[in-house]
Amino acid sequence: MSLTEFDLIAHYFNDKSPAPDSCVVLGIGDDCALLDVPDGHHLAVSTDSLVCGTHFFADVSPYRLGYKALAVNLSDLAAMGATPKWVSLAITVPEMDESWLSEFSRGFFELANKFNLVLVGGDTTKGPLSITVSVKGIIPRGLALKRNGARAGDLVCVSGALGDGGLGLACKLKKIALTNEQVFIDALELTEPRLELGILLRSLASSCIDISDGLTQDLRHVLESSHCAATLDLDKLPLSAALQQEIQGGGITKACAYQYALTGGDDYELLFTISADNLARLNTQLQNSDVRAANISVIGAITAWQEPLIALFDEQQAVSFSLQGWDHFR
Amino acid sequence: MSLTEFDLIAHYFNDKSPAPDSCVVLGIGDDCALLDVPDGHHLAVSTDSLVCGTHFFADVSPYRLGYKALAVNLSDLAAMGATPKWVSLAITVPEMDESWLSEFSRGFFELANKFNLVLVGGDTTKGPLSITVSVKGIIPRGLALKRNGARAGDLVCVSGALGDGGLGLACKLKKIALTNEQVFIDALELTEPRLELGILLRSLASSCIDISDGLTQDLRHVLESSHCAATLDLDKLPLSAALQQEIQGGGITKACAYQYALTGGDDYELLFTISADNLARLNTQLQNSDVRAANISVIGAITAWQEPLIALFDEQQAVSFSLQGWDHFR
Repeated sequence: MSLTEFDLIAHYFNDKSPAPDSCVVLGIGDDCALLDVPDGHHLAVSTDSLVCGTHFFADVSPYRLGYKALAVNLSDLAAMGATPKWVSLAITVPEMDESWLSEFSRGFFELANKFNLVLVGGDTTKGPLSITVSVKGIIPRGLALKRNGARAGDLVCVSGALGDGGLGLACKLKKIALTNEQVFIDALELTEPRLELGILLRSLASSCIDISDGLTQDLRHVLESSHCAATLDLDKLPLSAALQQEIQGGGITKACAYQYALTGGDDYELLFTISADNLARLNTQLQNSDVRAANISVIGAITAWQEPLIALFDEQQAVSFSLQGWDHFR
Repeated sequence: MSLTEFDLIAHYFNDKSPAPDSCVVLGIGDDCALLDVPDGHHLAVSTDSLVCGTHFFADVSPYRLGYKALAVNLSDLAAMGATPKWVSLAITVPEMDESWLSEFSRGFFELANKFNLVLVGGDTTKGPLSITVSVKGIIPRGLALKRNGARAGDLVCVSGALGDGGLGLACKLKKIALTNEQVFIDALELTEPRLELGILLRSLASSCIDISDGLTQDLRHVLESSHCAATLDLDKLPLSAALQQEIQGGGITKACAYQYALTGGDDYELLFTISADNLARLNTQLQNSDVRAANISVIGAITAWQEPLIALFDEQQAVSFSLQGWDHFR
């Protein structure tokens, strides 16, 4: 593939970006992009790669791949409470396939434009299919949602529903057959980054993380950073209507559904800790906002540090659960 | 490869980074890095991928690969006049090879630490070998070296010597056999980003770019952005002692050496335009500084816009040169 063809791709992507806002001093086309971080703000940066065969299947819809490559990065900004501003895209493709690239960029820019995210640079190269996205956002100094602020007495909350993303992957891998298969695959591939919620949480939550590796694993990161422990109530885990229907229909046991909710991963919901007073404030703000689909569930509480870090309860009875994740289902 | 092994790699890289400076509010280990861009400065961002088989050979020394993956990105910051500050590294490797990773990180951090560059994040994944580096620097507002500032009457200058990097690649590809082969391969693989020179040029040069695709192609970018043309004097092109020796020894013709200097690429020297007055100021500053190896050569002049954009002269005689680059040598 000639350099010229790659230049065409670069221009193609460039053209789809929204008009640079006043914080873009110099966009694509020079040696670097020049950006202005407003006074009084931190710059928040996150980088993630998606590699064919490791993070997605070779036959994935390019539209969904473009969407998800950006979504998982934006989810990191959401977990920090950052306002998304700029993105760099490094894409490696084995060949120049215009229809594939057109669909990929459609998915990428549908999400980018929704949040006024400006593409400020990147690289287009030839090789085995992989995508590296680096998102940049801003956040008023002192308001970032870190992992280390949870305190005993805080409530443990999550947005949305848990387990669907992991079930979507299990469906794609033919590990499980479910009636609502497409709902779960959609949850896996069309992740909704909770950016508006993250911004609302800035001055309210004591800690926050996005759930990429599974609820218990990501909660563990918060607990280790914050030097505390937590109780979780299984019966309070938010399960989607589709998953509840599968349980009722016998497609999956309740225990297995809980396991996906606890360890499935790929949820990209926000997991945060918050005082009861601030939760009341958050709920008032949510009622007065148009933040979509950010149903908040209280699923447990933070306690003083103890082993094990996470104590599970089912209808107020302590229960034991194997938490090793994927391997359990093979 | 288990996630745990990748976490180990991440920690391995993390540990080698210099102590975060005061501009790193939060480094590796949360959802995002939090950075402070000092008031009155722009943020400069550049992202480049190196893919095995496209940008480097599978048997490349991992030390040199780690070094070069960072060097080519830092060269973009140098061309902008930016002070390097932070870097994100996304690395995809087919397997966990500790000695390979150890050497890769040794090369990467040797260069990073030289410029007090802090690793603030990234991603480690399994898949075909590729590296995406995203560097971030800062630059006082209004002082960035753009491509569009060249004006008729400015001098055209380059740092260092030209052609060696391209010849190094030709040697590796067995397209040419030279006595000083290793010197040229070193020039290709151990590129020196001209960061100190870029910073000196901030208030002096009218435009700047780094030479990655070859002198004429990169000069063309400057001319198109600046709406002007240029004359180049072949006999003023800086050739290294090693290349001059090859010409004298008959290993390469003078015409072929010029062609590498004009179109070879992989030089990563700075190409800039500057007024005669400012060049005198620059030379005074260089005499009083310890900027290494930044020998500046005046190789031509900017003229009013005309076709062709680049007019070549050899000892004041206009000459014609085929400029199509690589294909010419096959």
